[in-house]
Amino acid sequence: MKNTFGSNVCLTIFGESHGPAVGAVLDGLPAGLPVDESFIAACMEHRRARGDGLSTARTEADTVRILSGVYHGHTTGTPITLTIENQNIRSADYEKTAQLLRPGHADYTAWAKYHGWQDARGGGHFSGRITAGLTAAGAICLSALQAKSISIATHLYRCAGVSDTPFAADSPQLLAQQMEAIQQCSGFPLIDPSAEAAMQSEIRKAGANGDSTGGILETAITGLPAGVGEPFFDSVESAISHMAFSIPAVKGIEFGMGFAFADALGSQANDPMRWQTDHAVFTTNHNGGINGGISNGMPIVFRTAIKPTPSIFKPQQTVCWPDGGNADLQLQGRHDPCIAPRAAIVQTCAAAIAVCDLLCTGHGCQWLCTDASIL
Amino acid sequence: MKNTFGSNVCLTIFGESHGPAVGAVLDGLPAGLPVDESFIAACMEHRRARGDGLSTARTEADTVRILSGVYHGHTTGTPITLTIENQNIRSADYEKTAQLLRPGHADYTAWAKYHGWQDARGGGHFSGRITAGLTAAGAICLSALQAKSISIATHLYRCAGVSDTPFAADSPQLLAQQMEAIQQCSGFPLIDPSAEAAMQSEIRKAGANGDSTGGILETAITGLPAGVGEPFFDSVESAISHMAFSIPAVKGIEFGMGFAFADALGSQANDPMRWQTDHAVFTTNHNGGINGGISNGMPIVFRTAIKPTPSIFKPQQTVCWPDGGNADLQLQGRHDPCIAPRAAIVQTCAAAIAVCDLLCTGHGCQWLCTDASIL
Amino acid sequence: MKNTFGSNVCLTIFGESHGPAVGAVLDGLPAGLPVDESFIAACMEHRRARGDGLSTARTEADTVRILSGVYHGHTTGTPITLTIENQNIRSADYEKTAQLLRPGHADYTAWAKYHGWQDARGGGHFSGRITAGLTAAGAICLSALQAKSISIATHLYRCAGVSDTPFAADSPQLLAQQMEAIQQCSGFPLIDPSAEAAMQSEIRKAGANGDSTGGILETAITGLPAGVGEPFFDSVESAISHMAFSIPAVKGIEFGMGFAFADALGSQANDPMRWQTDHAVFTTNHNGGINGGISNGMPIVFRTAIKPTPSIFKPQQTVCWPDGGNADLQLQGRHDPCIAPRAAIVQTCAAAIAVCDLLCTGHGCQWLCTDASIL
Amino acid sequence: MKNTFGSNVCLTIFGESHGPAVGAVLDGLPAGLPVDESFIAACMEHRRARGDGLSTARTEADTVRILSGVYHGHTTGTPITLTIENQNIRSADYEKTAQLLRPGHADYTAWAKYHGWQDARGGGHFSGRITAGLTAAGAICLSALQAKSISIATHLYRCAGVSDTPFAADSPQLLAQQMEAIQQCSGFPLIDPSAEAAMQSEIRKAGANGDSTGGILETAITGLPAGVGEPFFDSVESAISHMAFSIPAVKGIEFGMGFAFADALGSQANDPMRWQTDHAVFTTNHNGGINGGISNGMPIVFRTAIKPTPSIFKPQQTVCWPDGGNADLQLQGRHDPCIAPRAAIVQTCAAAIAVCDLLCTGHGCQWLCTDASIL
Repeated sequence: MKNTFGSNVCLTIFGESHGPAVGAVLDGLPAGLPVDESFIAACMEHRRARGDGLSTARTEADTVRILSGVYHGHTTGTPITLTIENQNIRSADYEKTAQLLRPGHADYTAWAKYHGWQDARGGGHFSGRITAGLTAAGAICLSALQAKSISIATHLYRCAGVSDTPFAADSPQLLAQQMEAIQQCSGFPLIDPSAEAAMQSEIRKAGANGDSTGGILETAITGLPAGVGEPFFDSVESAISHMAFSIPAVKGIEFGMGFAFADALGSQANDPMRWQTDHAVFTTNHNGGINGGISNGMPIVFRTAIKPTPSIFKPQQTVCWPDGGNADLQLQGRHDPCIAPRAAIVQTCAAAIAVCDLLCTGHGCQWLCTDASIL
Repeated sequence: MKNTFGSNVCLTIFGESHGPAVGAVLDGLPAGLPVDESFIAACMEHRRARGDGLSTARTEADTVRILSGVYHGHTTGTPITLTIENQNIRSADYEKTAQLLRPGHADYTAWAKYHGWQDARGGGHFSGRITAGLTAAGAICLSALQAKSISIATHLYRCAGVSDTPFAADSPQLLAQQMEAIQQCSGFPLIDPSAEAAMQSEIRKAGANGDSTGGILETAITGLPAGVGEPFFDSVESAISHMAFSIPAVKGIEFGMGFAFADALGSQANDPMRWQTDHAVFTTNHNGGINGGISNGMPIVFRTAIKPTPSIFKPQQTVCWPDGGNADLQLQGRHDPCIAPRAAIVQTCAAAIAVCDLLCTGHGCQWLCTDASIL
Repeated sequence: MKNTFGSNVCLTIFGESHGPAVGAVLDGLPAGLPVDESFIAACMEHRRARGDGLSTARTEADTVRILSGVYHGHTTGTPITLTIENQNIRSADYEKTAQLLRPGHADYTAWAKYHGWQDARGGGHFSGRITAGLTAAGAICLSALQAKSISIATHLYRCAGVSDTPFAADSPQLLAQQMEAIQQCSGFPLIDPSAEAAMQSEIRKAGANGDSTGGILETAITGLPAGVGEPFFDSVESAISHMAFSIPAVKGIEFGMGFAFADALGSQANDPMRWQTDHAVFTTNHNGGINGGISNGMPIVFRTAIKPTPSIFKPQQTVCWPDGGNADLQLQGRHDPCIAPRAAIVQTCAAAIAVCDLLCTGHGCQWLCTDASIL
Repeated sequence: MKNTFGSNVCLTIFGESHGPAVGAVLDGLPAGLPVDESFIAACMEHRRARGDGLSTARTEADTVRILSGVYHGHTTGTPITLTIENQNIRSADYEKTAQLLRPGHADYTAWAKYHGWQDARGGGHFSGRITAGLTAAGAICLSALQAKSISIATHLYRCAGVSDTPFAADSPQLLAQQMEAIQQCSGFPLIDPSAEAAMQSEIRKAGANGDSTGGILETAITGLPAGVGEPFFDSVESAISHMAFSIPAVKGIEFGMGFAFADALGSQANDPMRWQTDHAVFTTNHNGGINGGISNGMPIVFRTAIKPTPSIFKPQQTVCWPDGGNADLQLQGRHDPCIAPRAAIVQTCAAAIAVCDLLCTGHGCQWLCTDASIL
């Protein structure tokens, strides 16, 4: 299964940046889940470019058309197909430099893999635009999870060198407030909105220099019961990381303390447990809500490293293809100077798909649409 | 597929720490690959505990028995089954504290998932011992890759607060020397053997305090042709991370610059290309040999964060199960004060399995056992 | 993977009979295969209803739109998405009897599975119309196979009680002529066109009585090299039968002598072998080209039993849903009195997908688009 | 996944006829299911050869060793590994004719696929002996289903030209009695035990002539709720046929009326429905309990065609390998003159695995081990 994610809730995404349409097929959700098209549209809006110097000037309506699997506003239990037509296409921008492979991009690897048959216009299948289908499909999963009191939110933990307040992973109450605050943001998704101005200033500065910047996204998942995930191969970490690395520009992921575990002692890393009515709670959450690959009932917290957009306007050394030889590239086109702010909703929606798949594999999808508590 | 990894080269691992045996089934390798039992044994030896204050006193011969799929020293093309009998078992150590869940371990999540039916002795299916089967199976893949000039090595990038020299990711020649040096190590796998004494001293210090330490493993894969991996979901990063998080104690992974991308500019992160005969080479390797999820012909380099062993001998707050209530845990048993040194070979072998699966999915497994150059 | 077929060449089909569109995503084909839209259209034409008393009066243009994965007339290596808009919809026909479950149909099982959330109009996701996407996708696979000299054809072995000449399974030369003859048929796909008149007469007679008839389809696959398929679970028989039972109305499948093996002696059933230059040929083909689940180089021959269309116009005993109680059903709507003639091209295209998946799993997809002989 | 069956309950089988052991890994069953080793042994006993002129003289104890996944007599939720050591091996029988490929066997296709690396002794991985692991694993599934009132039984519908009474597919009460009678059989599994003498006489006659005979197995599954299975690709028919063709010698399968549908009218094929309290019942069962790929609550009934054992002692025309050239084969060794009687329990156990997978995919595996009625 090359371009499909999941064992029970399965997502296939398709499309090329300058082809007729991009989209997704989401299969495996149970019948009877409400599908709110305005909620899908709201998620698409968070992902949308604004052409404001912070994101690409290619702005599109990104209207999602539901071709199958939804009837009378609910899932039917059959594959849900979503398409988004491509509209604001300016392939001419790319033709000028089509033979010059863009460093940091998939131009060279696409040639190596597809031997020249790829649709290279606008990055083709490697364009961030392909995440439009992922976002639309993930929005449906996100709704389904929210109905079972499972919430997911992502903020700009760090962007262009400026940090937001981190998630309070060990305090479910404070974390809930932080997640609520992020969802209220009309601009960048932040816990501390005062960081926005500095981030935007740094992004604009990089953009003005023909350069780009990166960041770190932090995602929290709350309400997931203990006992989800598998000990090997289909652990919560494996499932989420498998999905997260499908978001273009993600180059690292860490759960809980992550790389900070390296220098910690076991006595600093273990999370003490206390008994509460009929289950355990953890007084800290260094493990990010996961032990042995399985959720422990605490919030799942992970961070991903987002590399700076490779499309920069500074001259770069590159090669010609397929004729060979060296060349200097002076890029044309419309590009984001920082992809991290738009990627936040993609990561939230991607995580929702992974969580739905984990739940449906472990507990059966019917659980998602019944009043039953998890087994 | 809960406890199985891979699409075309598939690994299933099984066993419990104190059950009759652990092992693995490796399916999908082509017929005719040489299987060198002494090489498997050498990999097992790297993983073996020595009972020297640096690793657990549970030391076993770890003899690998091949039940199927190998004939006259070569793969037959049918499933390869490997078993390793459990021998040096002291379940009594665990019985004393069986009702007290160990913080940082999977004891609580195993209860939540399996409702008490799990074999909890010695960590059961969550024991690091289950990686014995993974290592043996990976050793076969490692041999197969080496025959096609694909090499993999892992060193202790950092351990117990002490750093080794990092891989020279952008210099294939120097990197080859480093990988060779690691394979020559009789002790810890290091590029700079002089770091060993300080690491061991720190580990022993932690162990003497009843505590444990973590580390960072760095793995390099060289010789992998450009064009391997898929743009979405089955990217090289997705496949390797999916596998890596199956190694107990891994809590983070990063490729190339990884989390350092967050604060870099695009002009610092992109890897310039130069033409060489009939293909491109990259003058730097910030992207860790992967663009758009697909190998670019440069070395693949990634690092994983290894958390400190959760089994410590300091008193810890925990809960009783299934009766409930709080308790103080004073752990018994035999445990590693630092798992990172033994995990290095596991990570190498795990990566070999993931790479074999990626190659077989993209190019067909026959390539592995023919003289053909990759398509 | 609920609505997806395949391990390496994967097909997902979607849509409801009266929804916006039906279609398919075909993933895993290598880049560079020619995609001939007129050939796809020709296959769709074979499947199309004609409203001539032999097939349903719901006739549609069935224009296939390619949304992704094809560029400049060739596959790009990324998912190929095909959609076919639904046009000639008369849902009103169904509303009159929507509460009365049609015997022989999936109406009751759809309720049992989807709890009333299904889109039941026109059979919804259970309509034969969903095979439009399967046919379009299979046409692409069929082309790819033909370029490697692998041919597939299906004829009406038996229809409405009238038999065609059977395939000469053990004579590749005669079989090739028979397959050529079938492809020349403008009407029913037959080896002996003289059978058509009697078949049509019987179908019209059944239709005039408000009844329907069934048949048997026979498919031959030639040119498939020896060595394709797996000994267990992914045998050629398993793969083809898994796919064939996805064609609505198929209720049985047999390979080679099939059920006639039951009364044969081993000495009558075994196929003797003779040496020819560098490989074996079989002087008979009782095993339908498959031994131990693996192709033996002889033509693959199988037959499927097609049940009579359940949509008949005679009064039938049924139940009301969801209110319960018995009722008599007098069906409305437009239906085929015999689905077998239209199903022949569907079976050919379905087999093409299964064969592509088998080849790509065993030999790697690149083989399909290179000049290389199979390994 | 080459040698693995299933999406949620997954079976991998391994081993070679003359290797150290055969076995299976069964993954995905929930924790807490009772595992009765004596029931497994009883199923193995039904499959066992008796060396009585009706089955091969290679008789073995077939003791099943459980290596993992079972603790205190219950499943732990982790992979269950079963091994059966090979004991009564006489490889010398095969060496005499090792270069002469046996017609009807997989000898030639194994060469074509594995290029000579296969372990050909005793048929290697293609031996019926590999079904020992399948049977042992299926016995565990069969127990789990019985605890939920789902029963499966298989009888010799026809063997060596002699017929048993067929299943009363449309009468659950009579069918239950028939299934009970089959389970009481100490000899051949038959509804009408009086057929045994004639069957055995015909088998012995064929064996005495150095020949072999085939048969038809009929399997019934009762108690399966309506709503199990998927509309396309993972239909009940697809899942069961995919599994059934993994039993060596199966060359055809039909559900309900099967091939008899071809000559039936729709009015004869549809099953009328009547209302009963809160669900529908069908007054006939021509569709074998399946509509649109989904169970309808009636008994599932299917038949498989078993070809005569290819190992016969009459002289046969064959070829030499790898040297080429024609030869006459006079087979040595120990073989069953009819495999159908021993295959019946294999088919029952195989069906149990397929049904467990269908249930766990649709309803979640926890259902299998709780008191909950199906959702």
